[in-house]
This record gives sequence, C-alpha cells and structure tokens, in this order.
Amino acid sequence: MNSNDLKFLLESVKNGVVDIDEAMENLADLPFKDLGFAKIDNHRELRVGYPEVIYCEGKTIDQVVKIIEFMLTKNSNILGTRANKEMYLAVKEICPEAIYNDLSRTIVIKKHEIQKPDTYIAIVTAGTSDLPVAEEASVTAEILGNNVITISDVGVAGIHRLFDRLDIIRGAKVVIVAAGMEGALASVLGGLVDKPVIAVPTSIGYGANFGGLSALLAMLNSCASGVSVVNIDNGFGAGYLASMINKL
Amino acid sequence: MNSNDLKFLLESVKNGVVDIDEAMENLADLPFKDLGFAKIDNHRELRVGYPEVIYCEGKTIDQVVKIIEFMLTKNSNILGTRANKEMYLAVKEICPEAIYNDLSRTIVIKKHEIQKPDTYIAIVTAGTSDLPVAEEASVTAEILGNNVITISDVGVAGIHRLFDRLDIIRGAKVVIVAAGMEGALASVLGGLVDKPVIAVPTSIGYGANFGGLSALLAMLNSCASGVSVVNIDNGFGAGYLASMINKL
Amino acid sequence: MNSNDLKFLLESVKNGVVDIDEAMENLADLPFKDLGFAKIDNHRELRVGYPEVIYCEGKTIDQVVKIIEFMLTKNSNILGTRANKEMYLAVKEICPEAIYNDLSRTIVIKKHEIQKPDTYIAIVTAGTSDLPVAEEASVTAEILGNNVITISDVGVAGIHRLFDRLDIIRGAKVVIVAAGMEGALASVLGGLVDKPVIAVPTSIGYGANFGGLSALLAMLNSCASGVSVVNIDNGFGAGYLASMINKL
Amino acid sequence: MNSNDLKFLLESVKNGVVDIDEAMENLADLPFKDLGFAKIDNHRELRVGYPEVIYCEGKTIDQVVKIIEFMLTKNSNILGTRANKEMYLAVKEICPEAIYNDLSRTIVIKKHEIQKPDTYIAIVTAGTSDLPVAEEASVTAEILGNNVITISDVGVAGIHRLFDRLDIIRGAKVVIVAAGMEGALASVLGGLVDKPVIAVPTSIGYGANFGGLSALLAMLNSCASGVSVVNIDNGFGAGYLASMINKL
Amino acid sequence: MNSNDLKFLLESVKNGVVDIDEAMENLADLPFKDLGFAKIDNHRELRVGYPEVIYCEGKTIDQVVKIIEFMLTKNSNILGTRANKEMYLAVKEICPEAIYNDLSRTIVIKKHEIQKPDTYIAIVTAGTSDLPVAEEASVTAEILGNNVITISDVGVAGIHRLFDRLDIIRGAKVVIVAAGMEGALASVLGGLVDKPVIAVPTSIGYGANFGGLSALLAMLNSCASGVSVVNIDNGFGAGYLASMINKL
Amino acid sequence: MNSNDLKFLLESVKNGVVDIDEAMENLADLPFKDLGFAKIDNHRELRVGYPEVIYCEGKTIDQVVKIIEFMLTKNSNILGTRANKEMYLAVKEICPEAIYNDLSRTIVIKKHEIQKPDTYIAIVTAGTSDLPVAEEASVTAEILGNNVITISDVGVAGIHRLFDRLDIIRGAKVVIVAAGMEGALASVLGGLVDKPVIAVPTSIGYGANFGGLSALLAMLNSCASGVSVVNIDNGFGAGYLASMINKL
Amino acid sequence: MNSNDLKFLLESVKNGVVDIDEAMENLADLPFKDLGFAKIDNHRELRVGYPEVIYCEGKTIDQVVKIIEFMLTKNSNILGTRANKEMYLAVKEICPEAIYNDLSRTIVIKKHEIQKPDTYIAIVTAGTSDLPVAEEASVTAEILGNNVITISDVGVAGIHRLFDRLDIIRGAKVVIVAAGMEGALASVLGGLVDKPVIAVPTSIGYGANFGGLSALLAMLNSCASGVSVVNIDNGFGAGYLASMINKL
Amino acid sequence: MNSNDLKFLLESVKNGVVDIDEAMENLADLPFKDLGFAKIDNHRELRVGYPEVIYCEGKTIDQVVKIIEFMLTKNSNILGTRANKEMYLAVKEICPEAIYNDLSRTIVIKKHEIQKPDTYIAIVTAGTSDLPVAEEASVTAEILGNNVITISDVGVAGIHRLFDRLDIIRGAKVVIVAAGMEGALASVLGGLVDKPVIAVPTSIGYGANFGGLSALLAMLNSCASGVSVVNIDNGFGAGYLASMINKL
Repeated sequence: MNSNDLKFLLESVKNGVVDIDEAMENLADLPFKDLGFAKIDNHRELRVGYPEVIYCEGKTIDQVVKIIEFMLTKNSNILGTRANKEMYLAVKEICPEAIYNDLSRTIVIKKHEIQKPDTYIAIVTAGTSDLPVAEEASVTAEILGNNVITISDVGVAGIHRLFDRLDIIRGAKVVIVAAGMEGALASVLGGLVDKPVIAVPTSIGYGANFGGLSALLAMLNSCASGVSVVNIDNGFGAGYLASMINKL
Repeated sequence: MNSNDLKFLLESVKNGVVDIDEAMENLADLPFKDLGFAKIDNHRELRVGYPEVIYCEGKTIDQVVKIIEFMLTKNSNILGTRANKEMYLAVKEICPEAIYNDLSRTIVIKKHEIQKPDTYIAIVTAGTSDLPVAEEASVTAEILGNNVITISDVGVAGIHRLFDRLDIIRGAKVVIVAAGMEGALASVLGGLVDKPVIAVPTSIGYGANFGGLSALLAMLNSCASGVSVVNIDNGFGAGYLASMINKL
Repeated sequence: MNSNDLKFLLESVKNGVVDIDEAMENLADLPFKDLGFAKIDNHRELRVGYPEVIYCEGKTIDQVVKIIEFMLTKNSNILGTRANKEMYLAVKEICPEAIYNDLSRTIVIKKHEIQKPDTYIAIVTAGTSDLPVAEEASVTAEILGNNVITISDVGVAGIHRLFDRLDIIRGAKVVIVAAGMEGALASVLGGLVDKPVIAVPTSIGYGANFGGLSALLAMLNSCASGVSVVNIDNGFGAGYLASMINKL
Repeated sequence: MNSNDLKFLLESVKNGVVDIDEAMENLADLPFKDLGFAKIDNHRELRVGYPEVIYCEGKTIDQVVKIIEFMLTKNSNILGTRANKEMYLAVKEICPEAIYNDLSRTIVIKKHEIQKPDTYIAIVTAGTSDLPVAEEASVTAEILGNNVITISDVGVAGIHRLFDRLDIIRGAKVVIVAAGMEGALASVLGGLVDKPVIAVPTSIGYGANFGGLSALLAMLNSCASGVSVVNIDNGFGAGYLASMINKL
Repeated sequence: MNSNDLKFLLESVKNGVVDIDEAMENLADLPFKDLGFAKIDNHRELRVGYPEVIYCEGKTIDQVVKIIEFMLTKNSNILGTRANKEMYLAVKEICPEAIYNDLSRTIVIKKHEIQKPDTYIAIVTAGTSDLPVAEEASVTAEILGNNVITISDVGVAGIHRLFDRLDIIRGAKVVIVAAGMEGALASVLGGLVDKPVIAVPTSIGYGANFGGLSALLAMLNSCASGVSVVNIDNGFGAGYLASMINKL
Repeated sequence: MNSNDLKFLLESVKNGVVDIDEAMENLADLPFKDLGFAKIDNHRELRVGYPEVIYCEGKTIDQVVKIIEFMLTKNSNILGTRANKEMYLAVKEICPEAIYNDLSRTIVIKKHEIQKPDTYIAIVTAGTSDLPVAEEASVTAEILGNNVITISDVGVAGIHRLFDRLDIIRGAKVVIVAAGMEGALASVLGGLVDKPVIAVPTSIGYGANFGGLSALLAMLNSCASGVSVVNIDNGFGAGYLASMINKL
Repeated sequence: MNSNDLKFLLESVKNGVVDIDEAMENLADLPFKDLGFAKIDNHRELRVGYPEVIYCEGKTIDQVVKIIEFMLTKNSNILGTRANKEMYLAVKEICPEAIYNDLSRTIVIKKHEIQKPDTYIAIVTAGTSDLPVAEEASVTAEILGNNVITISDVGVAGIHRLFDRLDIIRGAKVVIVAAGMEGALASVLGGLVDKPVIAVPTSIGYGANFGGLSALLAMLNSCASGVSVVNIDNGFGAGYLASMINKL
Repeated sequence: MNSNDLKFLLESVKNGVVDIDEAMENLADLPFKDLGFAKIDNHRELRVGYPEVIYCEGKTIDQVVKIIEFMLTKNSNILGTRANKEMYLAVKEICPEAIYNDLSRTIVIKKHEIQKPDTYIAIVTAGTSDLPVAEEASVTAEILGNNVITISDVGVAGIHRLFDRLDIIRGAKVVIVAAGMEGALASVLGGLVDKPVIAVPTSIGYGANFGGLSALLAMLNSCASGVSVVNIDNGFGAGYLASMINKL
C-alpha cells in the first residue's frame, strides 16, 4: 500500500464508500509490522497447525510450566525441546496428555491432528550416538505434520550400510544428515541424492572434534552441492527447515 | 538381492524362464553402484538441463580451456565459477558465445534453454559489497533454470529498507541472504518470512570478522527457524541449493 | 601543580610564609600519584555515592564476609556481584539489611539514597534466558543511582515485539542490549535508536556459539554505528558504563 | 497509536473533523516503519548536521564517485572512510573542495559548519603506529561536530608519558584509546579517568597478536570499569560513538 | 566387468557352458559393493582374528550389554573401549570371562587366540599420566594379535631416560608415542628411529595446552620424517594402525 | 654396553687380545650418541639409497645451490622440495642432470638407481587441485625407491569414481589420500581398504576451510580405523612415511 | 673427545700409561649421555639442594604416596604441586613433617635447609584471585632456597596501589607477575622495573578470557622489554625460573 | 629521595643554603614519576650503554630517518629493528657509519663501546630458516654489550648435532632457543641445561603451524623447567631479556 492507496482509502472512508471496520482491517493488513506480524503468525498457526515451541534449557521448571500453561489456553500443539524429566513431570500435572521422549528430550502435547503431505523426510545418522539429535529432528518434523523415516548408523566407515538404504533415502523430498566426528556422511550423501540435504553436525567425538567443530567445518566445506548446515546438535532446526521444504 | 535371489535368477536364465535381457535389467537394478551412479548422473543432466560446472580457482588457463573443450562435446550448458578475465578470453577463443560476468566472476555457455518454474528465488544482500557473492548465486540459479529477483543493500543498520521490499521477498519460494560483518540480516529475515532461508556469510568486513567467521557463527546461531548456512562466500552453493528447492 | 605553583611554594618556604611541614604536605598532595589517586577515589565515592563493588566469584565465603565487614565501616553502599546464596546468608548475619537477587546473583547493601538523574537507561534483552545478565546490569545501574527500564524478550526472530517497545527504548539516554546466540539485536537496535548502545554478548546458546563467541563477534562487527561491546555476560560492566553515560 | 486511536482517527476523517492530509500525516507519524525511519533519518541529518558516510573499501572508484555524486545533491557533509588516493583524485574532479587525509585514508567534503559543544573528546594512542586509527576517529568526530584533542605515544611501556598528559585526558567528556599489541593502555586509562572509555584495538604488532586479537581480548577483559570496545582498527566507529556521547 | 561381459556370462549360463556356481562366484567377484564389503569383513575377521570393537562412551549400560550379547553369538573376540566399571559389571553377568582394565578403561573378551607375528610394537610415553592412552593402544594391539612393549616416562625433560631404552624402541617394527603438553617426544623419537612413528597427542597438561591442542599441533609440525598423527587421546586408533603395519 | 663390558673391553686392549682399531669400532657401535647417530645415518643412506633432502622454501637461491653443491660431493641422490623454477635453473648450472617437476615444485638429482620392492604405494586425490600435493608425495616416494600409482579426482561428491578404482587401491601396501575441503575421502577410503591410510589434508578450498583446518580436523576425527594424518599440504611427509611402510 | 683422542686413550691403556680405572673415568666423562645426565642431575641436587618435584594432578593418591615414599629414601627436600588435601593426608601418614598449603595446593617436605642468596624475588599479583598461582610460585621459590616478597592486589585498575609498592619491587633481582583478565600488569611493570619480569597469565576472569588466553596473548605481545611468559596458571614454572635467575 | 631528603631540601631552601632554581631542579630529579622515569632512563643509558631502539616496521622511511636524526643528537648507540634496505639507505645518508644486517634486518649505529661481562649468551636455532630471528637476538644482545655465541641448525630431528655442541651451550649464562615448526628444541634444551632458557617460537613452517602457533604452544607447555617464552619471531625481545639476565 503506497501513499496513493492510503489517500484513496481515507477518501473512501470519508465518502462512506468504505466503513470504518473495513478500513481498519485494511490498514491492519499493511505494514503495521508490530500488529501485523503477530496476526500473520496466528493465521499461520491456525492454517498449518504449527505448534508453539519452547526451548526449555536454561529455564526453570516453574517458567516452563507457566509458559505451557499459557500456551494451553490457545489450544495449539506444543513442543518443548531440551527438556529434562523433571520439567516433564511438572508439565504432566497440568496436562496429563503430555508425552516425554527420553532420547530427544522433548515434551509433546498434541491437541489436534495436522494434515501431512504424502512425501516424507529422511533422517540419516552416521552412528548410534547421533540418534538423540536425529530424534529431536524427527519429533519436530512430526509435530509439524510430516512423515519421517529414520535410517541410523550408516556412517562412512562401513559405507555398504549406506548403499543398502540408498533407495529409501533417495525417495525422500528432503534429507537430514546427523553426523559427528568428521561428518563425512553429509558430503557422501550430498553426492548420491538429488535432494536438499540439511546437515546437522553433532558434538559426538572427542579430542580434536572440539565439541563438534570438526563436523561443522567439514559440512560447511562439503564438495557436494545441495548441502546446507545448521548449528551443532540443532536437531530442532533441521526438523523445522525440513518440514518447511517438505511442505513446499 | 541376496545370494539366494541371485542363484534363482541364474537358474531361471539357464532354464529359459527368464531371458537374458530381462536378467541384465534385473542385475542392473541392483547395487552396481559404480556404473549406476554415472548413468543416473547422465540421465539427470539430460532431463533437467543441469549444466556442467567447473570451479576454476587454482586451475591453470590451459586446464580450464581443456575441460570446457571436452564439455562442449556433450552439448550441455556450462558454468565456470571463480574464473578470472584471462580464463574467459582463452575460453572465448574456442567458444565465442561464452559470456563473462565481471561481478560474479563466472563464465556461462548456454547451449539450450531450460524450462523455468513459475516461482522465483529471492536473493537479498545486506550491503553493496555483498553483491559479488549474490551475483554468483544469481548466475548459478539462472543457468540451472530459475527466475531470480535480487534485492540488495537492505542490511539491518537501516531496517526500513528491508521492510520496503518485504512483500517481494515473501513472494519467493526460497530466499538466499548474503551478508558479511555480523550477518544479522539472516536472522531478521528468518523471523519475517515463512520460507526456507539459505544464509551465505560473506568475508566482507575487517578486524574481528576474521575472514567471514563472525557472519558464519552468527548465521549458524540464528534464533530464527528455517535458516541454514553454506560456506563463506559460497554463492554457487546457495544458488544450487535454492534451485533444488525451487524445483521441488 | 605546575612549575609556577612549585616555584611559588618554594618561595613561600624561603620567606617563611609557609612552614616546612605544610610544604611537605602540599608536595605530597601533588603528583605523588600513589596517594593522589586514592584520595580522588574517596572523594568521588562521597560525592556521587559510588558503591564499593566486590566480584565474589572465586572468593571463599569467609573472604567475602571479611571484605564486606571492612566496607561496612566506611558506610558506603555495597554491591557484590556473582555471589551465591551461601555467600549471601553469611553476609546477612553481619548485615541484616543485605538483599539478595537470585536472578542477577547480586548482594546489595544500601546505606543511603543516591540522587538519580531524570533520564533513564533502557536494558533490552533478546530472550528470557538473557535476563540474568540484564538483571546484573540493572542492579548495578540502580545502586549507582539511575532509573532503569528493562524490556525483555524482543529478539529479532519476532522483530514486531521490538517495534512495539521502540518508543520507550528511544526515550532512554543510553541503551544496553543483552543478547546471546547470533546477537543480532544489537545491530538492529543500533540502526533504530540514536543513542549510545552498549552491547553485552551473553553465553546463551549452544554448539557453534562457543560460549558467547558468536554474539561477541557479531556485536563487534555491527554494521550499525554507535554500538560498543563489553565482555561476554558482563552485565556489571554494561550497567556501570551506562551509569557513567547517563550521568554526563 | 493503538486500535482505539486508529478508530478515532478514521471516524474523525469520516466526520470531516480531520481532513485527509492531516490524517495521512498522522498515519505517517506512526509505526509506518519503512517511511518513518527514512524521515527521521533525514530530520536528524538536517538538525545535527550528520554527514553521509561511505565505507569505500571494496568498492570500485566508479562506485565511490557515483555515490558521492548523488550525496552532493543533498548538500550534506560527506565522509568517505578507507579510501585510497585514486578514489580521492576521482572524487576531486567532481568536487574540488574534497579533502584527503593520507594518514586516516579519509575523504571529507564539508558543505556547512556544524555547531560544536564546548566539551571535547580525547583520543589517546599507545604508539605512533596506532595513529592512522586514531586519525580516522578524529576526522570522524570532527566532521560530526566535535572538538578533539589527540594525545599520542603514551603507551604503558613508559607510563610516565601518560601521567604527563593525564589532566588533559581527564578533562574530556569521553575518551578514545587506540592501542595494539597487548592493549594495556585501555585498562590503565580506565582506572585513571572517570569518563566513558571507548577502546579501539589496533592490528599493530606481529606474531601472537593474531591481527589484533591480543589487544581485542585484553580490552574486552579489562579489569577497569567504564571501558567498552569496538572492532579492531575501527576508528570510525569509535569517533561516531564518542560524538554521540559528547553531544548527550 | 562391463555390460558385454555380463551378457556373455549370462549367455554362457544359459548355454550350460558355465554352471551356476561358477557364475555366482564370478558375479561375487565384481563390484557387489554392499554385499561384498560385509563378506570381506567377515572373511577378514575369521582369518586374522580381528575383534569386534565397541566405542562405549555415550552409550547406556543397556546398549553396551545388548551389543556385546549379539557379538557373543558370532564367537569373535570383543574389545570395548572407553567403558566404565558399571558397564563392565553388567557385561560380566552375561559373560564371566570378560576382563576389565582400569587404566585403559577397556573390556576384553577373548574367545580364541590370535597368531602373532614375531615382530613387536613399541609404545613409548612421555610421562606417567600418558599411560591410560598408551594402555588403550596396548590392549588394542594385543587383542588384534601383536606383541607389545611399553616404555613409559621417557619424556624430553630428562632425555637420558630415552637413550637408555633406545635399543628396545629401535628393535620394534612400528612405534607409538603418547605425549601431552608440548609433545616433543614424537619429533625426538622420529629423528632417532628408522621406523614408522604413530604419534598420539594426549590431553595431559593445563592452561595453554587447550585440551591437547599443543601436543597435536607440535606432532603435526614435526620436523622429523616418518611421523604421522591420530586424534587426541586416541590410543585405540594408534593401536589399530600399529597392528596393521606390524602385520604387513 | 654396560660398565662391565667396557671394563672387559679395555682389559682386552691392554692385554692385546683386542687391537685398537677393533676397540674403536666397538666403542663406535655403542651409545656414543653424537658420533653414533651420524654414522648410522650414513650407513642407512648407503644401504637403502636414501636421498639427501632439502626443504627449499625460505632459503635463498644461493643457499640452495651451495647445499646441493656439497651434497653432490657425497654422490647420493638428492631431493629438493618446495623449490621454485629460479632455484632449479641455478641448480641446473652446476648439475645438468637435475630434473624439475612444475606440479610438485621438486628438484630431483638421481645419481644411482634404488632397488624397489614389488609392492606399490597408491596415492589418491579427491580433486584435480590436490594434485600438487599428491605429486610431491609421488616424487618423494619414487626417489626413495618405490613404485607409485596415482588415482586422482575420485572425491566423495561422485563416489562411483572411487569404486571404479577400488581394486587398484586395495592392491597397494599402503595408501596416501590427499584431500582438501571437507577431507571426507580419507574416512571413506579408510572404511574400504584394509591397509594403512596416510591422510594429507590440503589447503584447497576457501572460506571456512581456514587454510586446510577443515580437512585436517576431519581426518583427525576419522571414524574409520587405520587412518593417520600428516601436516596440511605435507606431500613429502606422506611420501616418506609411505616409503617406510612399503619397505617393511 | 674426537676419534684421535679416543685412539690416543686406547693406546695409552695398551701401553699401560693410563690404567683401566682412569680410562673408564675418562670415557664416562664423555658423551655417555644416559649415565652422564643422571649423574649431573644427582650432583646438582646435592650441591644446591634442589628438591624432588612431583606434579600430582592426574595421579592417584596411591601413586603420589609411592613416589614420595621412594623420594624420602634419597633424603632430599620434596615439593608436590597441584595436590589435593586427600593426597596430603595420605602422605602425612608416611611422613608426619609434610606441610600442606591450602592456597597453593602444595605439599612440602623439608629435610634440610638450603642456603639462600641475599637477593630476593618479588611476586606481584593483579588481584586477590591470582593469589593461588602466586603462592605456588612462592612455595616453589622458597623450597628452592630463595627469599620471596609477595605484593598482591596491585592491578592496573587502581594503578596507585602499584606505585606505592614500586620501590620494593624494584629492589628485587627478578620479578614474577601473576595476572588474569587482560594481564596488563606485566606490561606496566615491565616498563617500570629494570629487571627480568616473568609473566604468569592466570585463568582468572570469564567470558572472552577464554580460560586465560586473553592474559596470555597480552603478555606475549607486551610492548615492554624484558618480559617473558610461562604457561597459564604455571606458578611452579615461574618460581623455578625465578630461582634460577636469582641464583645466577 | 625519601621524606628525610625532602625535609632537608626544604630546610636548605628556607636557610638560603640552596636557592630556588637549584631546589626545583632537585625536585625534578625525584620520584616525580612522569619526569623522573625519563631521567632515570637517560641515566641508565649513559651508565650501561643502553641503545635507543626503534621498531621500524609500519613506519615510513621519512619517520625512521627523523627519529634517528633526533637520536643522533643524544650520542647514544642506536638499534633499528625490522628495517628494510630502503630505510637503511636513507639513514646512511645522514649517518654514514650506520651498518645494515640483511639477515636480521637491523640498522646499527655504534657511537661508543659498551663494557661486556665475561659471561656469554648462547643462541641456539633448530634450523637454518630460524637464523633471521636468531640474528635479531644476536645483534640486539651485542649492541647491549654482551658476548654471544650462535649455534645453529641443531634441531631435534637429528639430535646428535645438539649433543655435539652441548658443552658450549652449557657454558653460557643464559640460553636463547629459536625454533619453528614443533618447537621441541626448547624443551629438549630445557632438560639438558641448568640455565634460564628463553624460547622464541618462529613462524617457520607451513600448514598447521598457523603462523608460529604450533611452536608457541609447544614452548608454553614445555615439560622442562626453566623455560619462558617471548612472542613469535621476537628475536629483539629475547636478546634484550638475555642481556638483562647476563648482566645480573
């Protein structure tokens, strides 16, 4: 809406062509960023079933419970990430249908079903120890309304295990790879599949892995095209982005 | 196909139950990885018009010319990245329709048109100095068959410039953000658009930007969901991935 | 005391106008830096009500108590930072009016009121988890005699929340921004307000935030003018500097 | 302006109490961020004489000339930083009154005088080699309308040089310290003056200075209160912030 | 084997010129990578007595027990690295002959003897504190079927201790050096022995050893030829590689 | 030789049982480290044909020529690494049979043939740009007396290229892998071959490869066993170590 | 002793000019490094009273007790560094005169007095929190036989405290400075005293001190001459070196 | 000048024994730190022959000439470090007796001889490439009045070369070690000599030496006592400190 549009709208209000409520709705649809964003956000949630998300780490049990209590009033699905068991037990008291996942350390409260596209997201891990990160991605993608297939422990040290499962990976619309240590699986997969690959470096390893730096740098320098990277151990971010792409 | 399956197939060939062509097709469907991959690669190029790509940096002019000479026999489109003017002049002698882009330092040889989807890719830069990286992404996405709109110089120091162009960014199917220094634009855009955001940290800046590290870390730690990151100054990688997503 | 002053003093000694003891005292008051500084320091405290400050981390409970015991004899206000609850309980026994703030981990003992300027300091946080650092800044600025307004959880992932509170931020004389992860809020605010912005990177985040390094580098590389940076999690330093500026 | 205000305004338009131009002006004064910011920016420049600033590094001579050509139409003062001599010579052709400073590598075009406050900014350098950074700060602060006093080569290796000039430093409203190597001067000054100290780490040094990292970390970890830090070699940023504080 | 070969083989099967077993053997010799690797792996284990290895760190006791339970069905030797005592006690219940080594934190289950070559591996440590890493290497090399001689505490601070044992080190076919701090022993030994030296940087030290980085960089930059490096504290990797070389 | 041995030897000299020359030879064989090492070094060179090696980088042309002039008097083979063309031209004047290799930047002077073992060393590169490093390894291994087979451009982005050449790699006694960017080829090969793999990270790449750090960390963290690492771009070191292992 | 000397000696033995014992003594005086070093070491200890030193960190209580038990048989003074209280209590049972210092975490067993030179070592700390490191230096220097004066809490934030004590510092033969955070005290002192300054960076601080890196880099880049640096928190190393210099 | 001296001076003024000008001159001679330091510096130079030192890097030829021109008026010896040939040629025009050293890149102007102590400084280098740094140390120590013996190319890769020269190194009062790459020579020497060892890491090497970081960290983590470290390539600093110690 440019100045002319605005002038025309105001003239229409003056002339009675447009009534005040309609004008207000129109103005709310414009760059009233502060109000506007919130509204769009709300719309989006209602339409696609986006859950409310809380990052629980560094919050007190009390804070987590209060935030969820408020969210419950909005009747949306809820996802709590990096939550410990104590947080869950406290949440369960105000919401018995809350479900805790030990591996991914997530709390999920599902108020309504979300329509899922037919396509699926493949989540691939290099080793068993990368599973917690993969599971966080999986829980996130599922609560956002996606079918997910997880293929674990197909790291490059025994690359035949990967080839065994290549068809199912290639069938996905988007692929998440969680790998620690040297993170080579992202590049290998990037060269084998013709789909967007979201690489999640994990902090798995020791010594010169420097808390996930080795996998992070490896993935950023991937010689394969179509690979992008999220933060170390950021399963949630990978799942969220994969969902976005899967629903395009 | 395990040993038993294989034995049964060979017996069927012997018995004439299965003829040789059918058997060959069957065997070709298995994990003949070495041959298989190459074949698929070829198919893919023919089908979707993928160009041949050469990363020219660190190659001699002679090497670049010879590689392109060979590529020209395959009649596919060709993209040379990180090429200098001398390389281009040498290439032009064997291929007069080659086009050089000073800003992105790319050589493009277009042998045939590629069908483009109706959707478009938005490429957003924080500052004028990020344009070379953005242009590399743009040239890449275009030769891969995409409509691209570039919005430049909308960095967060004057955020109203961004809001001005928000509608056109939100209209894209996927967004590329190229930003150096503190790379904040990626997070801000990630919070404003509901599309996959591919963040390209650039090496623009000085001092404690440590060659792009500041923007890289900022983008990896983005508090906004839906943001993933490629290597510093990797316009090609961003353009390639954006094309993949735009064509889903 | 310049050369002329010195000459005059010596002449006064010669003439007997000033006796030797007085002259010695005078000379001791001059550029005898060691004594001089201390004196100025004391004056400053009396005049502007500067509190005594102890950084408690790494000190034993016993040491903290003894230091505060000594400070109490000087009747000035006292601020203990990075104090744990045990320290507080021990301090409370010798000074029942000591107040502990769980969030900022500060001990405050207020012996007299400090006159506050009419202007105020705005403290802005990107997320709820940055509150402890913000609170340390707030407690510091208040005991130094300032009005403080804290606006929390207005990070760039949902930038409309920030615009909602922009007027109050713009009304401040100086702004503190506490943000972790990618620390983008500092640059965004730096572009929106025409006041000195003190950026405090926090260690909030995980993985490639490397203990606050991501926010630190982002803030140092801010493309917005008027932004300067203090150490990671250094709420005290930000509050102290903001007070200095607010009282100019 | 909240919903009620908006409703009331529209009703006033309808009733003819407020005419359309007035209503448009009112709406433009609200959170129409995109328009609003630009306007405020313009106002600010007119009122306080803020110059237009171009960071020339990484731009072509042609780009620099074109940007300045456009700026000249607005009749404001102009500051170009990190400009080389060639840029200057090209600028001089379209604007003969442009002045180049070899040391600070700045281009200055002064169209009108700016009223300066009575207070001054002290710029202190540890060594002669830090002068280019100090000079960039100085030129910036002056074109922004400030009195500046530069005290150079008073590094801590011969601390008596500093004490000699302490009075003049203490007389400033805000102090900029530019130091490379171990950057100790910032902490020493921070302990000696009761004014905001803006520390600029410089890249002066070699070996384990890692391009200015040593001074940067030292300054961030300053044990003295009242010290904040800008990017390595960022004389402009320090000058800009000092001007902001000097004009409070 | 290309398509023609394959066609000819199948025709031969059909014609009875080649019988099915022969055909299967032929096909098995080709790039049936997925099956092939596993097969070779199995053969290798049977032939050379390679143990099954589990990296226990980051696994639950339950996971470790289940994996070992499965391994036991294959009757091969088993090596568990980075195992804690609790893991061992749980394993012992299902396999009483399991042996735990406190120093190396390994679980070993030896089902059959492995023939050892006459040559031996020398494992040399700089200090007593490097012994856990050396012991992990030693246990690994032994379960893989090698004679091992460990020479400890011969670091360069008292280099005469090293010369005393030089003959026994020179007699080995391959040498492992485990050293922390400045890791100088690797270079010194590399200059004194004419055998491959596998350097294991350890995390022993403090301060600027940055968790083993000092020894790692020192070893990578060794001025002596014949030295290669594995990850910090990676005794297992060194032992495995030494075994490979010792058996060449 | 302990004290008793020494006493007995001296008594034998006294008694004329052992003559002086024999005694001197005996004493020279003992821990006369200073003399002894040199002697052994000389012996080794004569026996196995080890060349003299000069690292030319950072030396003047004059220094290089003088060192080689001296070496020529000893009639051994000579290898100069990291030599530029100018150095070579100067060397050629005093030794016309010197050969320069543009790719590896080596000068080779072959005075006599060296007996080669039947086994061979495989040198594998991820990309064409890694060839200079591979060639340095190759030239080194050859002048040390080894058969070498180089397989280039088989990086993981198109892993089928690797499988195509796997047999020839597996046939080697020891494998060198030169790879830049994410260095994933080392891990993939480590999982596919049952031979020692010497990984050479190269500085090929840009941005977050940080001069070879990405490949270095990846290789150090390889999840495949049997992989060890030498310095970034250290083709010489890899070739030397491979020769050692190939000759065991 | 060169070949001629050796030949002459053997001939003298043969001729009876030199007897065997004398010859053996002569040979023992040569580069019999292994024996020789030990001998010299022993001599040194007896002569100057050097204590036996154990670095206790990372050793078990049992190991510490056994090592000290053995040392006690040699009747030398003993210094255990980085020892915890449990270690001390166990040591005390076998050696009741052992003394524990809580601050420096040292165990000292003094069997005999050491003659001290008249000069003294000054140990200066920036803050109270640096005292444990300073105390380790102090205890080390004292058991090695030196007079030590410790001046604490004279950091540069209040530089007058330092000037107050400058005379006593200048009177020392060698100065140790222990400082964390920005470590500026080392440079300031280096400029004020004309004696060797041994700088010990401490890990005191938080955030961007990165475990002592800030002080370490600052001290290495000191603009003052005469300053050298030991490892972070290495009080022992500083005390040992200071003793060496003090006794020159 | 203590209190008594001051009292006496003032009494003398009062009595007319000392006139005012003389008293002022006297007071200027005392602990008036600012003036005082400079004066003491002058005294020191006259007494011990300390040269004036200029760090030429980063200065213009003109600046260097002007500074030296001024220094020449004071008739002291002059040392210019990190000077290039052009600087020297310009200096030579105003001072024909200036001497340039190509290796160390120093300009030396010797106005008078300095008395040297009988003891000497040993400067030891690991390789030929470390010579420039060693030479800077040597030139510095000599102009400061010391006897220096340089022992070069005795790195640990051929440790017998070191033992050959050990006696001469042990005979020194203080030892400087210049080594790049892994810097192991510092630790080895630290274990072999009973004198202060000043370690200078050099930037010699490539790849993971990270500009001298590898040698720096190695030297800081030296397991040998008596070793301290100066900045990378800081030959001047080592020579200056060695001179201080040699003259104790």
